[in-house]
Amino acid sequence: MSLRIASRPKLEKGGRFDVVIVGGGPAGLSAAVYASRFLLKTVVLTVDVGGQLNLTNWVDDYPGFSRISASELVARFRDHAQSFGVTIVPGVEVKSVMRENGLFRVLGTGGVDVYSGSVIIAVGAMRRKLGVPGEEEFQGRGVSYCSICDAPLFKGRNAVVVVGGGDSALEGAALLSSYVGRVYLVHRRGEFRAKPVLVKEVLARDNVELLLNSVVTEILGEDSVKAVKVLNKVTGETRILEVDGIFIEIGFEPAREFFKSIGLEVDEYGYVKVDEWMRTNIPGVFAAGDAINMWRGFRQIVTAAATGAVAAYSAYQYLIEKGLYRPAGFK
Amino acid sequence: MSLRIASRPKLEKGGRFDVVIVGGGPAGLSAAVYASRFLLKTVVLTVDVGGQLNLTNWVDDYPGFSRISASELVARFRDHAQSFGVTIVPGVEVKSVMRENGLFRVLGTGGVDVYSGSVIIAVGAMRRKLGVPGEEEFQGRGVSYCSICDAPLFKGRNAVVVVGGGDSALEGAALLSSYVGRVYLVHRRGEFRAKPVLVKEVLARDNVELLLNSVVTEILGEDSVKAVKVLNKVTGETRILEVDGIFIEIGFEPAREFFKSIGLEVDEYGYVKVDEWMRTNIPGVFAAGDAINMWRGFRQIVTAAATGAVAAYSAYQYLIEKGLYRPAGFK
Repeated sequence: MSLRIASRPKLEKGGRFDVVIVGGGPAGLSAAVYASRFLLKTVVLTVDVGGQLNLTNWVDDYPGFSRISASELVARFRDHAQSFGVTIVPGVEVKSVMRENGLFRVLGTGGVDVYSGSVIIAVGAMRRKLGVPGEEEFQGRGVSYCSICDAPLFKGRNAVVVVGGGDSALEGAALLSSYVGRVYLVHRRGEFRAKPVLVKEVLARDNVELLLNSVVTEILGEDSVKAVKVLNKVTGETRILEVDGIFIEIGFEPAREFFKSIGLEVDEYGYVKVDEWMRTNIPGVFAAGDAINMWRGFRQIVTAAATGAVAAYSAYQYLIEKGLYRPAGFK
Repeated sequence: MSLRIASRPKLEKGGRFDVVIVGGGPAGLSAAVYASRFLLKTVVLTVDVGGQLNLTNWVDDYPGFSRISASELVARFRDHAQSFGVTIVPGVEVKSVMRENGLFRVLGTGGVDVYSGSVIIAVGAMRRKLGVPGEEEFQGRGVSYCSICDAPLFKGRNAVVVVGGGDSALEGAALLSSYVGRVYLVHRRGEFRAKPVLVKEVLARDNVELLLNSVVTEILGEDSVKAVKVLNKVTGETRILEVDGIFIEIGFEPAREFFKSIGLEVDEYGYVKVDEWMRTNIPGVFAAGDAINMWRGFRQIVTAAATGAVAAYSAYQYLIEKGLYRPAGFK
């Protein structure tokens, strides 16, 4: 479902930018909109355009759009950035960011080798997956990785499965139990690591059934999810739950190795430490979106977009301070 | 230009809500979208729907909309919130928020008297105005209060005036000098209080003319701004500058008295102190948007919307923790 740009732009080797944005999800594209409005020469280097939006189908929580397909929202973010002259280069994995002669040199796959006055890291985080048959096939068609984002889309449905035992899973189960008839909460352990108050909230719901010491082994469906196979690891029993969806809330994996290779400070969970202005420990390098340690546990399109905008503003300020601001329109 | 809701909803006296949102700009409406998605019984009490968006005409910086009229964007935010069942009551000025029996009692004009488990303060801040003839008449038609937001809309125009001597004014002048042919920077004093690096940046532009010790006395135009009258307070001379727009960057006035009456802690500038989760010093009271001390100096629609979303999430968490969560759909 990820969007491709018709002709991939060629990047001149050794070319100079004001901002290189690493990552093309909502945070990176919003940063691109803002950076280009500050007349910064801006390039987005990204594996795919859309980021985690490519994991979903419908969006009804980005303020201003009551309901829009994820791919259309991605296209609108992309077009918005491009309308201000941003270059977006998909299919690129950035391999290194290093200081060189007062600038940053950014190397990536496909021979990407550019210089920039500043860098914005907006690579997101990987949603952990179950790795079971059917998971990829039904992604966005009953398989969701964000209960808070998608619960209202399941309003009035018969039943769903939630997988996990942390805050997000319990919060998801509580919320979903108000939207759907029945919630099965599947957790591989015998107890939850979520906050006690969330566990209590879920236990108080008479339409939530707990399946502890259990794992999902397969997701079944036709056009969309119809059932989930669950194995009880203690009894060895397998149940087939007829459900309309499955919410996989087993956490995120930040890009620890990449952050480490750049020299970015991270928090205990592996997210890039930023201050209010999205400044990292490296002057000239900013971060935004799901890669950062802010608003952990509440990762939304609008929060990613806001932090991207702030990062671009801070990059602009940084370039002015360092005498590196060279606006294209300057006469 | 402010939007009216066809029939003003009647609020039952003593009625009970989960969240009362005070303010109906982007922050308040985004909070409403999110609160209602958490199935919280939500009401927005506001003087007008749209807040500072009503001061402008076109928006091209909210990611996802390359260009949209401010009134349409407000309508889309409003409709989005209402699609989830939020009650919006315009024409109400909230007068007090006080603790009563473990809830908050919220009193407002027009006999508003309701109870709520939590409150979100999203009243924005007042843009300071010059108070000169023509200012109100040409608002959104050449008169702007946000250079960063509106500079690209003036791309290729002949000339504009920027008024002010602080960071926002100097930053605005620098940015506008790249978008338009000529910038007149009008400041009532003989020197700037902006950061030296910003002053240096502006002085380096050969298309910026400084008019110090000077004040705008009138804004002239037909359909839109055509000229600005400037009085030099030292020489007594009046000049008429032919321009396409005027950017009034003389600061904001937060709602100090209102915050004080509620007991909210504010920072040195008068903005409500919040933590990362939009929690104020009063448990159960959250704040968002231009009213808060975060991202001061960079007040955007998308940043307001994000903080509104976070405030709603935090209110939801608070209600669960306090045993006050009573989701409508709960069976």
